[in-house]
Amino acid sequence: VRVLVTGASGFVGRCAAAALRDMGHSVIAVVHSGHRDPDGEALRVDLLSAGAAGRIAEAASADALLHLAWTTRHGAYWNDLANLNWLASTAELVAAVARRGTRRICVVGTCFEYDWPVDGDCDEQATPTAAHTVYDAAKNACRLVLEQLTRDMDLSLAWARLFHLFGPGEHPDRLVSSVCRALVAGQPARCSSASGLRDFMDVRDAGAALAHLVATDVRGIVNVASGETVRIRDVAFTLGELAGRPDLIAVGELPDRPNEPPRITASTSRLNREVGFQPERRLRDGLNDALTYWSEARDQNG
Amino acid sequence: VRVLVTGASGFVGRCAAAALRDMGHSVIAVVHSGHRDPDGEALRVDLLSAGAAGRIAEAASADALLHLAWTTRHGAYWNDLANLNWLASTAELVAAVARRGTRRICVVGTCFEYDWPVDGDCDEQATPTAAHTVYDAAKNACRLVLEQLTRDMDLSLAWARLFHLFGPGEHPDRLVSSVCRALVAGQPARCSSASGLRDFMDVRDAGAALAHLVATDVRGIVNVASGETVRIRDVAFTLGELAGRPDLIAVGELPDRPNEPPRITASTSRLNREVGFQPERRLRDGLNDALTYWSEARDQNG
Repeated sequence: VRVLVTGASGFVGRCAAAALRDMGHSVIAVVHSGHRDPDGEALRVDLLSAGAAGRIAEAASADALLHLAWTTRHGAYWNDLANLNWLASTAELVAAVARRGTRRICVVGTCFEYDWPVDGDCDEQATPTAAHTVYDAAKNACRLVLEQLTRDMDLSLAWARLFHLFGPGEHPDRLVSSVCRALVAGQPARCSSASGLRDFMDVRDAGAALAHLVATDVRGIVNVASGETVRIRDVAFTLGELAGRPDLIAVGELPDRPNEPPRITASTSRLNREVGFQPERRLRDGLNDALTYWSEARDQNG
Repeated sequence: VRVLVTGASGFVGRCAAAALRDMGHSVIAVVHSGHRDPDGEALRVDLLSAGAAGRIAEAASADALLHLAWTTRHGAYWNDLANLNWLASTAELVAAVARRGTRRICVVGTCFEYDWPVDGDCDEQATPTAAHTVYDAAKNACRLVLEQLTRDMDLSLAWARLFHLFGPGEHPDRLVSSVCRALVAGQPARCSSASGLRDFMDVRDAGAALAHLVATDVRGIVNVASGETVRIRDVAFTLGELAGRPDLIAVGELPDRPNEPPRITASTSRLNREVGFQPERRLRDGLNDALTYWSEARDQNG
C-alpha cells in the first residue's frame, strides 16, 4: 500500500512512517519546509499555504492518507485559533487526495474530545464528547466534517484518538521527559500530587498502531492507547526506581492544576480486536527506554 | 423557489424570511424549539441535537438553503467553543439537504473574517482573511469546509459576509439600540470616542439582500452591506439630532476598547452588480425607524 503521511517529521509521524516501512508499505512523507529531512521520499510543503493540498495530492497519488500534521506548539496549542486553520486545511487535503483516487483516510484525534467518565474507560461508541479547549473542539468538529465529506465521496475514514504518549522525541517539558531529565541530572523531579489515572503509550507503539490502522478498512473512531491504566505519580515513581534514584521523585511539591481530570483512560477493544493490534512494550519497558534516551542525550550534549 | 431558512426567528432571519415571502418564494422556517412561532410553515428543531440535519432535510425538500442559525449569545459568542459545534452542524446540514436535492446553499459569514485594510474597503477577492476570535475563525473555517463539500456534491454556494447591522429586534445592548434607549428615556447616551469607520446596514435591507442572493446563482463570497461608510460616533450624533436631543450624546465618556479596528467597511460591487441588489433605506432613515421602534417599545412597556 502507498501511504501519504503528513506530519512525518513529528513526534508520532516519525514512528508511524518507520512502522509503515517495516511493514513493507511505501511511504510518501509530507514534512514542513522548515523541518529536517526524514528518511525516504519526502514532499516539503507547508500544509497551510495556498494550494498545498492540491500540490500534495497531485504529487502523491497514494492509496491511503495518514494525516498527523496539526498545530502542536507546546503550551500554546490548546487555545490557538490556528486549530481552525488546521481543521479547514484537513478537509481540503482529504477532498484533494480523494479526487486523485485515495480511498482510505486515517486522521488523528485526541482523548480530550471525550467527556471523560470518572469511573471507567473512554469508549468509542458509548462515551459522549465534550469541548474543553479550542484544540479538542476543533478536532471533534474536524471529525464531524470529515464524516460528511467522506460519506459523500464514498471513502473509508478512521479517526484515531490518541491518549497520553511518551518516548523518543517527546517534548522535554512533558511529564516523562522532564522526570527523566531530572533523574539523569541527579536533580529532584518535582511533581504535583499527580493522582489522576491515565493511559500512557510508548510513541513507537502508537506509530505502529496507526500504521496497522491505516492499512485496514476499520472505520469510525478508534482509541489508540495501551489499555494499561496507571496513576500519573506511579509513572514518576517507576522512573525513579528504574534510575536507581527513587529518592529524587518529589511528588506533591508542585501545586495541582485546577480542573485536572481524575481519569482519562481508554477502552482498547476496537484497536486490539478489529484492527488486530497489540502494543509490543509494557509501560515499564518503554519508561526504561525513555530513561536511556535522555541519559544518552545528556552524554551527547555535555 | 422553496427556501429552507434556519435561524428564521432570529434578528436577521425574521427579515430574510419576510423578504423571501414578499418576493413570492415559499419559506420553510427552522426555529429553535425554545423560540416563539414565526409566521408561516415552521420546523421546531434544535440544530445541534443528534439527527437534526437529517430530519430537517427530509421534512423540507427545499430548492435552496439559507442558513443563518449559529451561536449568538451577546458578549459570549466571540470565544465560545459552541462555534465549533455550529461549524460541524452546518457541514452536516448542508450535506443532508444536498442529498435530498437542494442545490443552492447560502450561508452567512462575518466581516470579522477579514484582515481589515486600514485605508480601504474589504473586498471579497483582494482582502485576505485573519483570525481574531473563535467566532470569526470558525466562520472562515466553515466556509473553507463548505467549499470542499459543495464542490464535491456539485452545489452552488454563496458565503454572505454580514457587516454591522441594526434595526428592529436588535439586542438592546448594542450600539444603535442602546443610544436609542437612552434618548427615548431622556438620559445621556454615553459612548467611547467611537472614531472607527464602519458600514451600518438596516437589518431589513440585510434580510432582503440575503433573500435576493439565495435566489440567484451568484457563488463565492458576497459582502452584504450598505456601501455607506460612517464614523461610529456620527451614528450616535445622527440619532441625537433625529430625537431632538443632541445634548444627550456623550461621546468620549466611556473608555475606548483596546484593539478596536479603525476601519471595517465593505466593497458592495458584487452585491450591487452581480446580485443586483440595492438597499432601500439610507442610514438616516433606518436610524429614524430604530428610534421610533424603541420609542414605541418604551410606551408599550410603560
